[in-house]
Order: sequence, then C-alpha cells, then structure tokens
Amino acid sequence: MDWQRLYADRMALISDRSIIELLKLAERPDVISFAGGLPDPRSFPLEAIKDVTEWVLDNEGHAALQYGPTPGYTALREWIADRMERVDHVSLTADHILVTSGGLEAMDLIARTFINPGDTVIVEAPTYLAALHVFRSYQAEIVDVPMDDEGMQVDILEDRLKDLDRCGIRPKLLYTVPTFQNPSGVTLSEERRHHLIDVADRYGVPIFEDPAYAELRFEGEPPSSLISLNPNGVLFASTFSKTFGPGIRLGWIAAPPSVHTQLCQAKQGSDQCSSTLAQRIIYEYGKRGLLESHIAASIKLYRTKRNQTLEAISNLFPPGISWTRPEGGFYLWVTLPPAVDTTSMLAWAIEHEKVAYVAGSPFYAHGQGKNQFRICFSFPDTTQIEEGVRRLARVVTHHIERRHESYHREVG
Amino acid sequence: MDWQRLYADRMALISDRSIIELLKLAERPDVISFAGGLPDPRSFPLEAIKDVTEWVLDNEGHAALQYGPTPGYTALREWIADRMERVDHVSLTADHILVTSGGLEAMDLIARTFINPGDTVIVEAPTYLAALHVFRSYQAEIVDVPMDDEGMQVDILEDRLKDLDRCGIRPKLLYTVPTFQNPSGVTLSEERRHHLIDVADRYGVPIFEDPAYAELRFEGEPPSSLISLNPNGVLFASTFSKTFGPGIRLGWIAAPPSVHTQLCQAKQGSDQCSSTLAQRIIYEYGKRGLLESHIAASIKLYRTKRNQTLEAISNLFPPGISWTRPEGGFYLWVTLPPAVDTTSMLAWAIEHEKVAYVAGSPFYAHGQGKNQFRICFSFPDTTQIEEGVRRLARVVTHHIERRHESYHREVG
Repeated sequence: MDWQRLYADRMALISDRSIIELLKLAERPDVISFAGGLPDPRSFPLEAIKDVTEWVLDNEGHAALQYGPTPGYTALREWIADRMERVDHVSLTADHILVTSGGLEAMDLIARTFINPGDTVIVEAPTYLAALHVFRSYQAEIVDVPMDDEGMQVDILEDRLKDLDRCGIRPKLLYTVPTFQNPSGVTLSEERRHHLIDVADRYGVPIFEDPAYAELRFEGEPPSSLISLNPNGVLFASTFSKTFGPGIRLGWIAAPPSVHTQLCQAKQGSDQCSSTLAQRIIYEYGKRGLLESHIAASIKLYRTKRNQTLEAISNLFPPGISWTRPEGGFYLWVTLPPAVDTTSMLAWAIEHEKVAYVAGSPFYAHGQGKNQFRICFSFPDTTQIEEGVRRLARVVTHHIERRHESYHREVG
Repeated sequence: MDWQRLYADRMALISDRSIIELLKLAERPDVISFAGGLPDPRSFPLEAIKDVTEWVLDNEGHAALQYGPTPGYTALREWIADRMERVDHVSLTADHILVTSGGLEAMDLIARTFINPGDTVIVEAPTYLAALHVFRSYQAEIVDVPMDDEGMQVDILEDRLKDLDRCGIRPKLLYTVPTFQNPSGVTLSEERRHHLIDVADRYGVPIFEDPAYAELRFEGEPPSSLISLNPNGVLFASTFSKTFGPGIRLGWIAAPPSVHTQLCQAKQGSDQCSSTLAQRIIYEYGKRGLLESHIAASIKLYRTKRNQTLEAISNLFPPGISWTRPEGGFYLWVTLPPAVDTTSMLAWAIEHEKVAYVAGSPFYAHGQGKNQFRICFSFPDTTQIEEGVRRLARVVTHHIERRHESYHREVG
C-alpha cells in the first residue's frame, strides 16, 4: 500500500516531531528536566484516591464501567457549575457544562465546532504550543498578538481586528491563557481583561479562555475570570490535569447552552463520552472536599519550587538575560540576548550539561522567539532545582560568550 | 454573541439528534430496551477490577496519574501485539499499536489522518451509525455496498470501485465490521474475505477493519481476520468496551509503523494520551489472565440471551418478517414487509408497549432500511427478554395490520 499519497492535507501541517523527540531526550534519568509541563507526582494523594476509587467500585461499579451520557455524568456537571460559581464568580448550571477527556480534547472539540479551513484564529505570542497544533490541524489561519508583562497587548489586538475587518475577515476564536500563561507565566491585568472583553464583543469574536493554571496561585488576588465578565461571549475550557492529575484525563467546557448542544454533537463523533469511572472518581473526590485540600497542598509545593527557581536564576544567571516572575502556575519565560538560538542550544544543554527546557520558537505561530525558552519548575524535585538552574546558567553563559566570539570573528 | 453564524460547515452534517433523543426515551425504567448497544453490567467482574486497581495505585500510583506517552503505555502495547498474534493470527510489535480512548477515538483518528473534505469512503449497507457520523464530520462522500447473509457483497464492491475508477476517484478507506456486524449480526464469509482483500489491494484502497464484537463468538470457528490476510493493507481498530467495559474508555489501532507515526501526530492534537490509570488497569487485568476468563463468562451470558431472543422471535413474531441469526456479538437485524416505517413505529412502541429498539434508516448512508430495525440482545436481563420480544411482536403485528388497512383504504 502506498500510504504516503493517502494522508489528509492537514497531516502536513502537524508533522513536526521535534518536540516529541526532545521531550523523549529530556526524560533520560540523568537529565534535570525543566521541559515537559508535568505536575509533581509527589503531589498526588494516592491514599485518598484509592479510598475514593474503592468506594466508587463498591457502590456504583456497574454504572462506572458502563457507557455514560455524552455531556458527562450529571452530578459531576452540577458540581462543576457550582464550583465555578465560587471560583470563577459566574452563575452557571449543568446545561453549560460538558465533561471532556482532558483539556486538549476540550480544545479539539471547540476547534471542530467552529473552524473551517482558512478561518482565522487569534492567539497570544507566545502561546500554548498544543493549541497551535490543534488550530493548525483544522487548517486555521493564525494571527498573533504580542504580550508584555501585563499579558496580551489589547490595543494591538484592536489594531489587528480593525485590519482584518477591513479585509472582510471576522476571526472565529480568540484563544487566551489569561492567568499564569503557558509558556510565559504572565497574567493579563484586570484593566486589560475589561478592555479585551469590550474589544472582542465589539468585533463579534468569541473568546476561548483557557484557565488551566489559574487555581495554582501562590500570592495576590485573582483578577476576574473572562467568563464572569461576559458569560455569553466566552468559551471556558479547563482541566483536572494540573489540580488532580493528568492520568485521569478529565477536563470540561463551560459554554452557553446553544453552543453546548453543538459541542455535544462534536463529542459524539470524537469519543462518545469521557470515562465514566474517572468522572465518578473525580466527583466523589470533589464532593468530599479532597480536591480543595489537594490544591492547597499543590500551591504550597509549587510556591516553594517557584521561589527556589527564581532565587537560583537571579543568583546564577549571567547579565543580559531577562525572565518573568509568575505569581502562580508552572512556568517562567527566559529571554536571552538576540542571536542566541535556544533550539540548537538545547541539544548542547542535554549533551554537555544534562539539563533540559523547551525552546521558544514552537510557542509562536510564526517562528519568533528564537532567543527565548520556557522553564517549567513544577516537575523537578526541590532538591534538584538549584543544581538544574546552575547547569542552565553554564549553558546560557557558554552560548552568550560563543555568540560574542562569533560576532567578533565576523566583524574582526 | 451570534453563535449560529460561527459554526463550522461540518456541524450541519452531524446535527441529527433523533438517536440521542430516542435513546434517552429508551432509558425509562419501565421500558424494556433492545436499543443501545450496551454490554450487560452484570458481566463486569467488579471484585477483580477493584483488586487490580488497588494494586496499580499501590505499586504504580505516581506513573498512573501522570501524563503518558502518546502511543500508549509500552507494556500494554506489547501485550496487545502479543495477544493479537494469538487471537488474530498476525505478527505485530508495539510499533504497530496505538492505544486510544475507546473505539470511537480510534475511528476519529483514522478519519483525521486520511480524509479531506470530498474524499470517498466505502461502507457496508447497513453499517455502524457512529462510523457514518465520524465520516460525515470529516465531510467524506460515502459510497455504500449492500450486504447479504455472507456479509458485504464483494462483487458489487468491485463494480463500484470500477465505476469510481472510471471517474478518477480512488476511495481513501473501506470501512467494514466483518464479524457479527453492527447492526446486522452478519459475518463476512472466509471466501469473501480473500476476495475483499484482493479487490481492495488491486484498487489501492486501505481496509479499515472494526472487529469490536469478534471475540464474543458463541459457536463455530472464526474466519481469518482481515489484517492477518494483508497486514500492510489493513488498519485494525478495536475496543475494550465490549470485552472489559465501556467505562474504562480504551481501544487500540494496529497499523503499519509508517501509518502509526501519522496516527500519533493526530492523537497529539486529539487528547495527547489516553488515561494512564486506565491503561495500567487493563494491562494488569490482562496480564493476570482475567480478561480471558471475563470474555469466556461474557460469551456464556450473551449466548443464553441470543438463544432466548431467537426462540422468542420465532415463536411470537407474525409471518412476513425475516431476521438474522448471529453466531456472536450483540445484535440481530429484523426486516419487516415494505412500507412499515420503523421510525414512526418506534415512538408507538415506546408509548404503547414500553419496548425499544433502533430503527433501520440511521444505519444507512443514504436513508435506506425504513422497514428494518436492530435488536440488541446483550443488555436486557435474561428474565426480560421473552417479555420484551412479546411486546415487540405486538408492535410489529399492529403495524403490519395497519399497513394492510391503509393499503386497502388506498386501493379500495
């Protein structure tokens, strides 16, 4: 069979395996990895999860192993809606909530429901790289809007929308990770949130709010969720991967009921329903208050790691480098002097210093960020962070110096 | 927000909610339902599953709640490959196996990897209705090939391929459920299997083999799996939903390694990885030999139900009706005299006789089968089957008589 000629056009748009290969390298046990965005497995409360799972199988085993309704287990959907009222300050019911098989399926379902080939999607620059993968796989045209320390630059967004409007283009979605962004760690300011809602509403563009890390706040007061500012203009898609554990593969979408109906149709053709066993475990876990204590413990753990990372960076990194100081989440974002290429530097870092990160370019729709990289501080053990940053410092020092040398060679 | 104008074109092709609504009706506790294709929850060995789950959380809890590799848990992939060697008589390795979040995700990934809008897909008539949903959502043109008691009529397939070839059309996939088909219960004969492989190979069309029910064989010798007849020309996508339980949401694809790589790319944008917890549970369950004893017990249970159903039908149904006699699986397929509409009959059946089935039309790409319906005998309790068939017999008797009356009114 000549398979090559049979693949769909979309496959050529998502064929970059470099990240997968690099992440594999980063999993070598001798490498201290700041690469993959993984929660610390030591944060998983296994005994509590075991108790809950046993209870579910004892009391609801037949239902837990059967098919469930496409929108999700009703009691869980109600519990999520109630919890969002408390956490995100928005009034919803089960009719707004669709349970998904993780945050990425949520993203895929939203893309599937809205994007025709050639449709425009707006993202932040940089943005979550899996979001780029999903939007590309639906053959979207991606327009990006730069960020600064207060998040997406909404005045530039407004210019972009004006330009697009002049060309008769109305974007289908505006994707944002407004709090402790992946990859930058930056949070959209309260003032910009209101401005963003206003601009998106004026141009009729739905906002796709991804709050994956928002509950992992180490300090300060949370700004308003976007969905609370305009419940009928925002699709909110979150995940239990960072607050409970990725292995359970559960997330959810909150959307206006008319959109919810369409998303359920899309899910009928995607995986029919999410794991009923997993849904009942999460529900029982949540109902017992265990998710709240789990999140509180995670915040404490990740705050310590963030502090260790920032302290080591500020002590050890050479001059000429800037980085973000996130108030929560998993990530911070490093900018080196121009002309240091963090992609080629990564192979060197793994080989010579046994330390890994993710290079900046894949987080941009159009290949910017060659001199940037992401540090994920959530995964390495607290005993390894300082040593990991020390290795990173040697890597960047070496590459900054090499850049000077090559500059001098070129002009000399 | 004016959501209606924002939806992707594909959504208009999958907007039929009639099945969802009917299945809801069929779940009323006073209705005996032969509708949904559900395994009998009494077949779930809850104690064994509890033991295994506890073992996984005790021994591998950290890994089981973390992200896993996109192709799946390596030990499970190896185990599946080994098991397929025994069950399906084909020699594979882990490099051929991709673990999916149920059989439907497997189908979605295959469609995503191969189908551009307008591409042609060949299916059986009738076929699995969720397959139609998936192929439609990728905007495929669907060509169907009729079945008889030996399965897909491969000589007619050959004519269809010849016609398509004359128009310059080479189909992207040929989808078949060759054993105990959903919905018909029919099995493709050994001779036709060889013919099918030959024809598909000559025209360069990959076969998509869906063996969801093949292991639930009540009698007779299994014919060759299609993948064993041409491992490089067949994509094989199966599920643990019928042999273990749907709530675990796991399936797999066996494909040539080059296709496997593409499917993994597609899964990166679909749900990243299937539940690591579920994968480790299934693996441990399988390794202990529990899946084999589970399947043996299921076969015994479903054989009894099949026998009860066939006996009751042959005792109670009025003349002028034909039905299939499956040697395994969940389904049999009933054909009423022409001009009895099983869709309108269903509303009447639920209302007046409190019995449910699925009407025939949705199983056809082009709306045939108005006088046919599917009986799923796996779900109702053994104490209810005879009474359920008795109710069905009254329903069909009433509608056949009404048809005679209306005929006489029309001609009289």
